[in-house]
Amino acid sequence: MADRLRVGLAGLGTVGAGVVRLLDANAALIERRSGRAIEVVAVSARDRTRDRGIDLSRFAWLDDTAALAGHDEVDVVVELIGGADGPALTLARGALSAGRGLVTANKAMLAHHGLELAALAEERGLPLKFEAAVAGGIPVIKGLREGAAANEIARVTGILNGTCNFILSKMEAEGRDFAEVLSEAQALGYAEADPTFDIDGIDAAHKLAILASLAFGTRPAFGDVGVQGIRHVLGADIAEAAALGHRVRLVGVAEAGPSDQKGGGLFQRVHPHLVPIDHPLAHVTGSTNAVVAEGDHVGRLLFQGAGAGAGPTASAVVADLIDIARGVVGTPFAMPAAALAAAPRADSGERRGRAYLRFTVEDRVGVLAEIAAAMRDAGVSIESLIQRGTSADGHALVAIVTHDGPERCVAQALERLRGSQSLAGQPLWMPILG
Amino acid sequence: MADRLRVGLAGLGTVGAGVVRLLDANAALIERRSGRAIEVVAVSARDRTRDRGIDLSRFAWLDDTAALAGHDEVDVVVELIGGADGPALTLARGALSAGRGLVTANKAMLAHHGLELAALAEERGLPLKFEAAVAGGIPVIKGLREGAAANEIARVTGILNGTCNFILSKMEAEGRDFAEVLSEAQALGYAEADPTFDIDGIDAAHKLAILASLAFGTRPAFGDVGVQGIRHVLGADIAEAAALGHRVRLVGVAEAGPSDQKGGGLFQRVHPHLVPIDHPLAHVTGSTNAVVAEGDHVGRLLFQGAGAGAGPTASAVVADLIDIARGVVGTPFAMPAAALAAAPRADSGERRGRAYLRFTVEDRVGVLAEIAAAMRDAGVSIESLIQRGTSADGHALVAIVTHDGPERCVAQALERLRGSQSLAGQPLWMPILG
Repeated sequence: MADRLRVGLAGLGTVGAGVVRLLDANAALIERRSGRAIEVVAVSARDRTRDRGIDLSRFAWLDDTAALAGHDEVDVVVELIGGADGPALTLARGALSAGRGLVTANKAMLAHHGLELAALAEERGLPLKFEAAVAGGIPVIKGLREGAAANEIARVTGILNGTCNFILSKMEAEGRDFAEVLSEAQALGYAEADPTFDIDGIDAAHKLAILASLAFGTRPAFGDVGVQGIRHVLGADIAEAAALGHRVRLVGVAEAGPSDQKGGGLFQRVHPHLVPIDHPLAHVTGSTNAVVAEGDHVGRLLFQGAGAGAGPTASAVVADLIDIARGVVGTPFAMPAAALAAAPRADSGERRGRAYLRFTVEDRVGVLAEIAAAMRDAGVSIESLIQRGTSADGHALVAIVTHDGPERCVAQALERLRGSQSLAGQPLWMPILG
Repeated sequence: MADRLRVGLAGLGTVGAGVVRLLDANAALIERRSGRAIEVVAVSARDRTRDRGIDLSRFAWLDDTAALAGHDEVDVVVELIGGADGPALTLARGALSAGRGLVTANKAMLAHHGLELAALAEERGLPLKFEAAVAGGIPVIKGLREGAAANEIARVTGILNGTCNFILSKMEAEGRDFAEVLSEAQALGYAEADPTFDIDGIDAAHKLAILASLAFGTRPAFGDVGVQGIRHVLGADIAEAAALGHRVRLVGVAEAGPSDQKGGGLFQRVHPHLVPIDHPLAHVTGSTNAVVAEGDHVGRLLFQGAGAGAGPTASAVVADLIDIARGVVGTPFAMPAAALAAAPRADSGERRGRAYLRFTVEDRVGVLAEIAAAMRDAGVSIESLIQRGTSADGHALVAIVTHDGPERCVAQALERLRGSQSLAGQPLWMPILG
């Protein structure tokens, strides 16, 4: 039996405490599977005194998190602090520079600095692993990096944020509006007090940038992800979608740009979508996450499970530690950082598809004609249109499904209608998943 | 860039030819991801002259398959011959003995001889990989061996045979009976001319034995898998199941035996089940495969995709080759062969659950009373019972759903009814997935 793998753990929030508990609970099993014991030896967190229900007295305590990087007893650093920069990034750079392997759940840091960290790890022959950064306990990083490695990937789609999916599922099940369900989710602990990162799609965009890099051999490029969250989805939109045989989900999509275009490039977007009921993502409810990868030989692969929480996220962190204990180093983004391409951002206007459009309108003569004319003038072909009666505030709702066509045309139609006196508030556009 | 990985390929059927085509199509991508080229250098198959649509002239041809094992140019042997014993086993033993890594899609060989081959590989520090042996292109072997490695697994359930799932889905969609749909599936190439291995559940049982070993750290024990196929499922059973909110699927289940029993042991069974409509396996249609693993920390993980076919299976074979090219050896069954436990077969009688029972009965006085008495005397509590009118041949159908209870009682009830003049043919029992 080889020497034990000694872990320095930074961050003792929900996930950090979960990692300690998992390593305690399954120590013997993990040793049988890894060929060696995996043991936390040193920890660092903001507050030493907080009761986490775990015995910390057996670990060295470091007030200075950055010092974990150089701690004599530590073979691998587990970074669970969070945040794209600051102490997490300092620790990550420090650990790799000091010859320690790194396991992290930090999607923001990887989406922004993944390339730099991967290059640093590879230069020194060190493992840099981040299964927990995307989709919690689901081994989808491994699934793309290794399981689907023989394939040219055409598209990755995923439900990557449990809070949004919980809210959308609840709106759907109970026919309620966003703000109401958000408050309840916050009260239940399913949404943060400041839910911006989740509900505005930023968290999902971080994860999508990582998946896209793995799938397409490109540099993680968070800045190229188009992002819109779920704030503007109404209960009425979900009801219209249901009537059309669809569910509304916040979906991340990464795909190769149209190959007939110069450059092609990579298209990345997080946006509420209409998902057809026969698509696997339509059946993902509550805080569950799921990722679909479409490979040229394997076809459509689905990975589904718990996307957050102490147990599932700890499961992913420890899976990475087991890989390291087994001696697997690997390349963080499936191919050497130097080989990752700097793909241009694909022009979304050239993307084709069907779309859902919803207008909240003043209930008066000529409104429908104005909308229909804008569609016609922009070359948008309407598959169906429905107007629902007037609400208490005197507004009506117009929902349109377009035929297949370029997104550019829909954008032009919306541009034509901008500032129209007929519209009460911003229209909502949602692509329909193909 | 390291030297290329040189492959000796045995078997050029659908999958073998698929591997050659995949390695051709994605050669550059695979080299970027692996850090080295992966090239077939030598092949062996039954018939040299058959047109497979691929150019074989660039490979060394060996008439003697076993000779691939010792071929000078070969680093890794890919065994795609099939069959638990015979030439496949000879080649597998030969390759490992001669210091070559082995990749195989051969579930039958692994279910019967996996322990021996794993020990042989480990002794020599060689890779033995078999992602393609279970669920085609879905990286579920990797998912269990690595992705879920931090977890104590409570249960693995899976739809592991595409032919059976295709037939059951078609029976469901079209309201037809088994024999009719099987003939059509054979005509379409979805079922073999001799479909026994598929429809009698043997193929699924081979796969389940492999999954169980990985999940529970036990020796692969095909002989301990209880097996019943789908021959006896009627269109009427599927209709009754649907009325009850369930679908009929051939499901493999492996789980730890009741922990309050001496020994506990491992329970393994392939059997048609009623799957509740809100269970992920209920939405697996056509020839798709899916596996659900339930871990103590990660919760329920779902892996889904194409379970067979040239492209998906080749994708899994080449994923294993990429792992090997990347220098990952690993232990075949997730822990050393010597550490795998010889788990006793758990007593299925102690398993609790609800069940579906269907009797085809003579349409005469007293039949229902006889069945009800047998249930009562065996201690089976009936949740619902339905009798459907008489068919053309003068028989009626009685379908029962039991309350939760031990399987032992249901078996006793069926035993009491054995040979009864009231019954026309064998009753069908199907567990309801919990």
